[in-house]
Amino acid sequence: MGTIALLTDYGLNDGFVGMLKGAIKTVAPATDIIDITHHINSFDIRSAAFLLEKSYRYFPPATVFLVVVDPGVGTERRLLAAAAGGYTFVAPDNGVLSSVLAQFDKKTVHSVGNEVLSPQSVGATFHGRDIMAPIAAQLAQGTPLSGVGPMISSYAILPQPSLLRNDRGVIGEIVYVDKFGNLISNITRRDLPSGVAPEHLRCTIGPARDIQFVASYAAAVDLAAIISGFDTVEIFVNQGSAAARFAKPVGMTLAVEAVA
Amino acid sequence: MGTIALLTDYGLNDGFVGMLKGAIKTVAPATDIIDITHHINSFDIRSAAFLLEKSYRYFPPATVFLVVVDPGVGTERRLLAAAAGGYTFVAPDNGVLSSVLAQFDKKTVHSVGNEVLSPQSVGATFHGRDIMAPIAAQLAQGTPLSGVGPMISSYAILPQPSLLRNDRGVIGEIVYVDKFGNLISNITRRDLPSGVAPEHLRCTIGPARDIQFVASYAAAVDLAAIISGFDTVEIFVNQGSAAARFAKPVGMTLAVEAVA
Amino acid sequence: MGTIALLTDYGLNDGFVGMLKGAIKTVAPATDIIDITHHINSFDIRSAAFLLEKSYRYFPPATVFLVVVDPGVGTERRLLAAAAGGYTFVAPDNGVLSSVLAQFDKKTVHSVGNEVLSPQSVGATFHGRDIMAPIAAQLAQGTPLSGVGPMISSYAILPQPSLLRNDRGVIGEIVYVDKFGNLISNITRRDLPSGVAPEHLRCTIGPARDIQFVASYAAAVDLAAIISGFDTVEIFVNQGSAAARFAKPVGMTLAVEAVA
Repeated sequence: MGTIALLTDYGLNDGFVGMLKGAIKTVAPATDIIDITHHINSFDIRSAAFLLEKSYRYFPPATVFLVVVDPGVGTERRLLAAAAGGYTFVAPDNGVLSSVLAQFDKKTVHSVGNEVLSPQSVGATFHGRDIMAPIAAQLAQGTPLSGVGPMISSYAILPQPSLLRNDRGVIGEIVYVDKFGNLISNITRRDLPSGVAPEHLRCTIGPARDIQFVASYAAAVDLAAIISGFDTVEIFVNQGSAAARFAKPVGMTLAVEAVA
Repeated sequence: MGTIALLTDYGLNDGFVGMLKGAIKTVAPATDIIDITHHINSFDIRSAAFLLEKSYRYFPPATVFLVVVDPGVGTERRLLAAAAGGYTFVAPDNGVLSSVLAQFDKKTVHSVGNEVLSPQSVGATFHGRDIMAPIAAQLAQGTPLSGVGPMISSYAILPQPSLLRNDRGVIGEIVYVDKFGNLISNITRRDLPSGVAPEHLRCTIGPARDIQFVASYAAAVDLAAIISGFDTVEIFVNQGSAAARFAKPVGMTLAVEAVA
Repeated sequence: MGTIALLTDYGLNDGFVGMLKGAIKTVAPATDIIDITHHINSFDIRSAAFLLEKSYRYFPPATVFLVVVDPGVGTERRLLAAAAGGYTFVAPDNGVLSSVLAQFDKKTVHSVGNEVLSPQSVGATFHGRDIMAPIAAQLAQGTPLSGVGPMISSYAILPQPSLLRNDRGVIGEIVYVDKFGNLISNITRRDLPSGVAPEHLRCTIGPARDIQFVASYAAAVDLAAIISGFDTVEIFVNQGSAAARFAKPVGMTLAVEAVA
């Protein structure tokens, strides 16, 4: 019983994900495993943190999220097991959990104990399979967090992308590009100027100005804005790639302002 | 209980498929989910319709197929829930179901009701997750089609690739290229000239003539023909790519004729 | 009940894997299916044999492995069903099982019977779906090996990559490149000179000499060696690609020797 959701940069070519799942099922045969994605760019902690924060809420209650983007594997970096909002999260202590944990006022974070980290049989390269998968499986089966290691009071926090509100609107940045070439920002629906209808908002990104909100992808003639599936402002080209319009879209400033 | 098979153009990079599955499992925790593919080219309704029609028969009885290739998401386009042959199909009303539904004399098609389509909480970009996944999950759990919206009598139909029989044989076209570079046509086993042994058939595609049927991939020296895993005539190169021989294979005419 | 692990060169684009899973679930609805990978290069029997041998031990007891890399599909090549170590393996008789079966002193190998191989309904191109999937499903449900065909005493064996031990150390070769660009050799932990601490070992590959073992990826400055997740010596560049340093890394000689 229980669900484990996986988010890694392992790719699907080398059997890494298969071995990880085998390790989970060896401990917890009846667990349901769902892949979020395994195509995070190698070592891209920021994108993993973003996708985790934007997707966790669509999973069943009590889901255990196992997040393995781990450039520090085999070093002294800690492993974390955290609980918040009824969910459980297992990941290296490199900031990859910081965006999702920031969503919750109440959370408990444990560090995985040294006795688990250093058995003779574990190598230095594949802690996802050898340590984190069995821990996630045990947690999915009901082991309490206190069973994997001591509670801790601080953990690594990623610098957050900038978000500034002023009296005209809000200025954020592009934080992700999806497979359609859509530019995903960190500006959520709640960050938009309150009391202003979407048709009175305009977006600016680089040299592109006066970008309007539309009600559907199909309604757009050229660059347009919409609320994305990540629930943030997205700049897109209908059946084309907005990303192709900019040399390096991630990190670009996006302003959303009410028409004067 | 129940099986849901997924066919989308979401790709596997962005967590879209993971969120879709999370949404299904939140409604129907015990449902078995099988991926057909998520690598349909963005918005390629025709390829999705082809793969659905060629694969549905290999799935367990009562499987619910959730097909999301949806360039019209957020517009007035309808969503469909259909039943035929003991299976259930959920998809946008853009023709993606028309090939599979054409296989069945008896079918019932419902339009998803407006009260489901327009709750406050749903955005305009991710109806796969926000509307279609919960509906598919409910149908997999036994909700009748009448529970999701009214029965309708017409729905979008894709133009079908041409298929002409004459007294020498049959003329069809290439409709799909698979990952091995094999050219998949719309000419099924049943369309071939009856009473003619395969060794007396010859295929013509573009400048390539006199292509013979072989009994296995390994038996081919150069371009050859075989009945594909889609149960249609396929032109291939053994351990090579037939697609690489032609500038734009999809849409090319393929003739299969008895030797004079 | 039961687990089936899949390893193929089908890719994920064309619905082949979906149909294979549908065929399994039609026979054995409660079977748990785990993908090892479907991204083996087309017809690359050696890589499939390597990944199978390195991953099988991480799967639950009694797992049935279905391995489909099958350039000879539709020819007279046999299909095998084998049992060893409590696991079951189903694959074409082309050597793809030889590395994993070599791990076990005690094994039984059966050839799939002709009555199964040649029903009227089976085509010549997709035996993974039409023959091997139903057989794997039956075996996962408890059908004994004797139920699928006669026991045989020999089967295809792949030539093994070379591995030579001398009084200074061990000479093997690069057998696989993973998605991070890490060079994976066939030299296991047990092949290393006994009684020599890792800090006294040096690796040589092509013009690159004096490559040292490190305790973690992060500890490496340039090319370095570590024990990989496949439990063999791996040459890597921290957060870079070792594969990019060599024109054709697979097949290159790797020597590991104690410092003089």
